[in-house]
Amino acid sequence: MFPYQPQVHQYPYSNNQLMPHGYYNSPYSDGGWLWQQNTWASDESYRMHPQQRLCFVLVHGSWADAHFWDGIAEVLRRNGHVVYTPEYAGHGSDPNKNVTHAMITKSVVDFITKQDLCDIILVGHSFGGTVIQKVSEQVSDRIKRLVFWDAFVLKDGESLSDELPPQTKQAFEQLRASSKDDTIMLPFPLFRDLFVNTASLEEAESIYSGVAPEPAKPLFEKLNLKVFYALPTPKSYVYFYQDGVLPQGEGFGWNPHMSIRLGLFRLIVGDGDHMTDSRTRPAMVAQKLYEAGRD
Amino acid sequence: MFPYQPQVHQYPYSNNQLMPHGYYNSPYSDGGWLWQQNTWASDESYRMHPQQRLCFVLVHGSWADAHFWDGIAEVLRRNGHVVYTPEYAGHGSDPNKNVTHAMITKSVVDFITKQDLCDIILVGHSFGGTVIQKVSEQVSDRIKRLVFWDAFVLKDGESLSDELPPQTKQAFEQLRASSKDDTIMLPFPLFRDLFVNTASLEEAESIYSGVAPEPAKPLFEKLNLKVFYALPTPKSYVYFYQDGVLPQGEGFGWNPHMSIRLGLFRLIVGDGDHMTDSRTRPAMVAQKLYEAGRD
Amino acid sequence: MFPYQPQVHQYPYSNNQLMPHGYYNSPYSDGGWLWQQNTWASDESYRMHPQQRLCFVLVHGSWADAHFWDGIAEVLRRNGHVVYTPEYAGHGSDPNKNVTHAMITKSVVDFITKQDLCDIILVGHSFGGTVIQKVSEQVSDRIKRLVFWDAFVLKDGESLSDELPPQTKQAFEQLRASSKDDTIMLPFPLFRDLFVNTASLEEAESIYSGVAPEPAKPLFEKLNLKVFYALPTPKSYVYFYQDGVLPQGEGFGWNPHMSIRLGLFRLIVGDGDHMTDSRTRPAMVAQKLYEAGRD
Repeated sequence: MFPYQPQVHQYPYSNNQLMPHGYYNSPYSDGGWLWQQNTWASDESYRMHPQQRLCFVLVHGSWADAHFWDGIAEVLRRNGHVVYTPEYAGHGSDPNKNVTHAMITKSVVDFITKQDLCDIILVGHSFGGTVIQKVSEQVSDRIKRLVFWDAFVLKDGESLSDELPPQTKQAFEQLRASSKDDTIMLPFPLFRDLFVNTASLEEAESIYSGVAPEPAKPLFEKLNLKVFYALPTPKSYVYFYQDGVLPQGEGFGWNPHMSIRLGLFRLIVGDGDHMTDSRTRPAMVAQKLYEAGRD
Repeated sequence: MFPYQPQVHQYPYSNNQLMPHGYYNSPYSDGGWLWQQNTWASDESYRMHPQQRLCFVLVHGSWADAHFWDGIAEVLRRNGHVVYTPEYAGHGSDPNKNVTHAMITKSVVDFITKQDLCDIILVGHSFGGTVIQKVSEQVSDRIKRLVFWDAFVLKDGESLSDELPPQTKQAFEQLRASSKDDTIMLPFPLFRDLFVNTASLEEAESIYSGVAPEPAKPLFEKLNLKVFYALPTPKSYVYFYQDGVLPQGEGFGWNPHMSIRLGLFRLIVGDGDHMTDSRTRPAMVAQKLYEAGRD
Repeated sequence: MFPYQPQVHQYPYSNNQLMPHGYYNSPYSDGGWLWQQNTWASDESYRMHPQQRLCFVLVHGSWADAHFWDGIAEVLRRNGHVVYTPEYAGHGSDPNKNVTHAMITKSVVDFITKQDLCDIILVGHSFGGTVIQKVSEQVSDRIKRLVFWDAFVLKDGESLSDELPPQTKQAFEQLRASSKDDTIMLPFPLFRDLFVNTASLEEAESIYSGVAPEPAKPLFEKLNLKVFYALPTPKSYVYFYQDGVLPQGEGFGWNPHMSIRLGLFRLIVGDGDHMTDSRTRPAMVAQKLYEAGRD
């Protein structure tokens, strides 16, 4: 049966008056739209129409840093969007790997508030889903829509590791135990088969060369998400059907297993895996994120 | 485990003599085929071979009327098929919204019998699945194959609302309660995110402009389907994997949750959502319906 | 919950030293690679890069013989790979239909050992999945990677028929009972709708013309697979999402229902059905098998 019902009533659609500000702007109203022209991505014969201008804040996942978004952000900017890719604690150039989920959340919240960003399309990839769940609890008035892309949507009280199938959970626990600084480093064969399964070996090695040990603690922290499950913020889920990190069924997976926790959400499906396409087909990913984020 | 086993024995395939008349005609027998030539759809580079001539009866779903099929029917006719798109009670120009499922079924049955149609490929979309389930009970001798396209296949004794996930069911019940004439009108944000999730905002608004309040009663009526589950009529299921109206798993969904109730059926999968493609890619939909309906 | 946990500990990824020989060779090490050039498949505009040279052993399924692989093997050879397509007992020109699963396994094992094949990408399609499960138990040191393509991955102690949904199992049992030599012959309508659902009628008839009665016994034999579930051999699963032989969910199916039994595996997804594409799109299938088999 339906595996999870948030305790807090959530029904954002019954009444237009209850819609968060900016949820739905007519394209014919003044100021709501800026059309971007003559700058279409030409690297893929993807369907490209003039795009509503959006403000994206892109939050990466584990074993990645803000450069994960480089190609995708470039395409989005070329299409007229404003794009931010905040780095968070324990990642990128931060030498301190001893971080908590709250520190990671604070990095993104501080970035958003210091830049005074509004009407954000807040995108989380993979572990980044748990980050935007917590970030949205603190700055919901600045968020126009949440977009989860093959991202964890945790239940109240869960940790990310609670959503891993037994083999993967066991692997992570063993790798964590063998670390000296409470991090998890993925061996290349595991990374190659689960995270970049559709890549060529050269592409897989190139992506792997940027992978750093991931702080383990935030993956095993139980999160209080009661506020999240009361937010009326519109939500989308982008699912790539070659993603091999989680099985899609048998009690696990991105979609529908975790996506349905969003309640009534917009689904966008693409042909991609967990990490390869951000490098090899950024225009495809950018288009899917746009489809997830637009009005 | 296997969630539903019709009580009535149904095994249409073990013996060719048990096949309904016309189920399988050799293309080399006289009269069985009419080839259509030089009229290929040129709007999409879809694989287009000469097509076996079929007689389609297309039954739309809720929040739609017979014009839902306009683009698809045009492509099918261009490819040599005979196409009917019957309107049913409570929809289109019918001012009476106080209708029952039996009245809707009668509209389609009467259309088929008055026109004396035979060897029909009877297609139901969405709620239309429940309609062709009931229609086929009355005119099974006129039907060559049933095609369900992201359509409800109800168990004996079920109502459509029994197949909705809790959030959607709750939304429908609230919308119904707030109506003065026992109809359900979808707010645009809900329609946009669930029914036309892959559309541009302009396409979504254009489609929404044709949406009328839907009579609520037929969506909550329990249907007796014992006769349906005894029919040996061949069946196909067309599933579009970006359809966001129902989650595909966790005890819900078009395929396989409801499709497997058809027993041994032909599966056809496409990249589309619930309503957008009928407007934006009618040739793609027409091709999928042809693949589902041909011998 | 997770439906199946092999009793034998299996975790091939935590330590590179535990990787089977040849699992991961750097492309920059001498001898590990042979580049094939100027022989790209031109029949499909598929993404084609120079391919790492692999040695494929392709094991067909039921209602097929080694010619099932003709088109696919031709494309793979054109791309520089070495390809073997062993025939097994009870199939092809073997007049004896009274065979056991062990006899079938022995055919493939003998083929591999007599030819002294090493570093094999061992591919099983459909029933062939059960064959490569048993073959790998005997010649694991010769196998570089196992690739299951819409193939059965049985639990220890299961038979193939245990994985069939009730309607299909009932059909197979009835067809077996009506046979004089303990074989199962698929009626054309069943074959057409379940095995070659996306084919044109002409393609379906052409493929069906090569279908022979299948020895029934091996489909109902319980297999001891304890050794298989202790093998650290890397594994891939290729899933075609229009495959209609099994429902994908509700406790049945190729992926993830059976694929997850492989533990940590590489997933590759394609748009195809169970048998059509081997005939109509061999280059697409060959590409997917290459993506599943490469380092």
